[in-house]
Amino acid sequence: MNEFQRIAAFLEAFSLRPSPGGPGDDAALLPPTKHQQVVTTDAVVEGVHFSRQTFRLADIGHKALAVNLSDVAAMGAKPTWAVCALQLPVGFSDKDLRALSSGMAALAAAHGVSLIGGNVTKASQLSVTVTLAGEVPLGRRAMTRSGARPGHRVYVSGPLGSASAGLEVLSNAKRQPSSRGPVKVDPSWEALVLAQRSPSPHVRWGLEAARFASAGVDVSDGLVQDLGHVCEASEVGMSLETGALPVLEALLLWCASEKHVHRHALTGGEDYVLAVTVPPSRAREFEQRLSAVGQGAFPIGVVTRTRRLTVDGRERSGRGGYQHF
Amino acid sequence: MNEFQRIAAFLEAFSLRPSPGGPGDDAALLPPTKHQQVVTTDAVVEGVHFSRQTFRLADIGHKALAVNLSDVAAMGAKPTWAVCALQLPVGFSDKDLRALSSGMAALAAAHGVSLIGGNVTKASQLSVTVTLAGEVPLGRRAMTRSGARPGHRVYVSGPLGSASAGLEVLSNAKRQPSSRGPVKVDPSWEALVLAQRSPSPHVRWGLEAARFASAGVDVSDGLVQDLGHVCEASEVGMSLETGALPVLEALLLWCASEKHVHRHALTGGEDYVLAVTVPPSRAREFEQRLSAVGQGAFPIGVVTRTRRLTVDGRERSGRGGYQHF
Repeated sequence: MNEFQRIAAFLEAFSLRPSPGGPGDDAALLPPTKHQQVVTTDAVVEGVHFSRQTFRLADIGHKALAVNLSDVAAMGAKPTWAVCALQLPVGFSDKDLRALSSGMAALAAAHGVSLIGGNVTKASQLSVTVTLAGEVPLGRRAMTRSGARPGHRVYVSGPLGSASAGLEVLSNAKRQPSSRGPVKVDPSWEALVLAQRSPSPHVRWGLEAARFASAGVDVSDGLVQDLGHVCEASEVGMSLETGALPVLEALLLWCASEKHVHRHALTGGEDYVLAVTVPPSRAREFEQRLSAVGQGAFPIGVVTRTRRLTVDGRERSGRGGYQHF
Repeated sequence: MNEFQRIAAFLEAFSLRPSPGGPGDDAALLPPTKHQQVVTTDAVVEGVHFSRQTFRLADIGHKALAVNLSDVAAMGAKPTWAVCALQLPVGFSDKDLRALSSGMAALAAAHGVSLIGGNVTKASQLSVTVTLAGEVPLGRRAMTRSGARPGHRVYVSGPLGSASAGLEVLSNAKRQPSSRGPVKVDPSWEALVLAQRSPSPHVRWGLEAARFASAGVDVSDGLVQDLGHVCEASEVGMSLETGALPVLEALLLWCASEKHVHRHALTGGEDYVLAVTVPPSRAREFEQRLSAVGQGAFPIGVVTRTRRLTVDGRERSGRGGYQHF
């Protein structure tokens, strides 16, 4: 297949909105917009973010978009369009490409994201780089990291530590490789593995939370590290309680000790959960609204004036989260 | 260096406009816009698009942005913002990162492009993926590939075949590697090598041409292949004359035969020259306007009703241009 056939194969799974410029132009053409826009870019790279022993190709396509959706969600924006730059190793087949595409297309459709452009090149290593845009609903403000004030409550959107535990599960399973496709894991750990391989970005949660929150962030590098960024940008501290951290029952079963549970929940990367701070005057309404739309909101602590992040009263540095280098 | 220090090192060379969301948020925040927007993404990959034996790191940073600028130019749009996703191999130093960044930052500054976000990850192979947006000036239309009509004249924005000849020069030079840095080449071929290593995208030309052109395209995969896309989208043919193709004197000197010259000019990739079609009624005004702003416009043929692309009367298929796979 040449480049154009490869692009066509990749695009098959997507339902494409016609662009005013028509497909195949040098760039996609978008109409003017009354909305504030948000833009983010993130990549998943073979051997760094996934291996083909532990991920299906559809998972890789899904995750490449999911990590970007989580960033847009953390801004309280509605995802709109994406472009996708693929680096494909020699021997990456037509069938492989369609499998990769199917995972991304399904998630794009679920969130109303239009794929408006892309690029395909060969490389030694499979990677998928997505740039995703979103729009801030009219009359609302984007969530940023700098608005947390002492006394505001800290909430997260879902269970913590699942994805990093899922990686442990997959690493262990890898030692007994099955003959075909990605490794099989014990059903007990399926929820952990799912969080690692196929995370569900909390887009609806972010849109609702932005109406109440003073600050928001995406917990992708570990809770302590990411909340550390909010503390720094807002010039505040936080006091968190381990007893309040939401975790899956599977995580409790997987971990040998409470310490191990807390390590995952506090420093495990790739959860793609959102964390926000909410003024106490709006906390009740916030919780009611999230509950009304079928979403959970888990209070885990409070913003403090002293610029330290403490867990059960003990100071934590931002270190210990996921380090990219 | 951790990821955040790496990002900071990369950003040093850029003059960053403050974002309403502040730096370090999960996504960049952009204001509403009355302009139609264009968006494109393109990557340069080590061993595919460049080697560090023949490119300086600053060239790589430059080229990663240049290839995207050319796409935006081909739409008749003004570049506005970019995001940059870096994949860095182990051992890629702080100094290397600053060198890469310097080349991109200089070109971004020259074209008024704001770098609004990015991502850094490790990988086995150096690659730089840029997503670039532009805006169509108010009251104007974007250039697309579908507006060419029989009788319209075909123009290009500059010399053809230089970049692919430059690659030949570099490949030959590579056989006698110098001890430090990229290979040295004979000054006679400097213009060809410059076109390969450090192309100047024709942004101003595209903005001016869009006021007159019925269709436009970026000649990045070879003239015949890229004009073939215009023919297909516009449901027309074209008749080109080799005698009219603009080429550098260095190309004539480099090539052993006229046939070799024509091969580069007709099928050589990576020129990042623009090609447009202009209605005959507007051709004179188009040429005068381009000349008035110090830009050349080279007529190379005419759009035909018969849906064939001919060169000196002989039919050419779109094949022979750059094949990405």
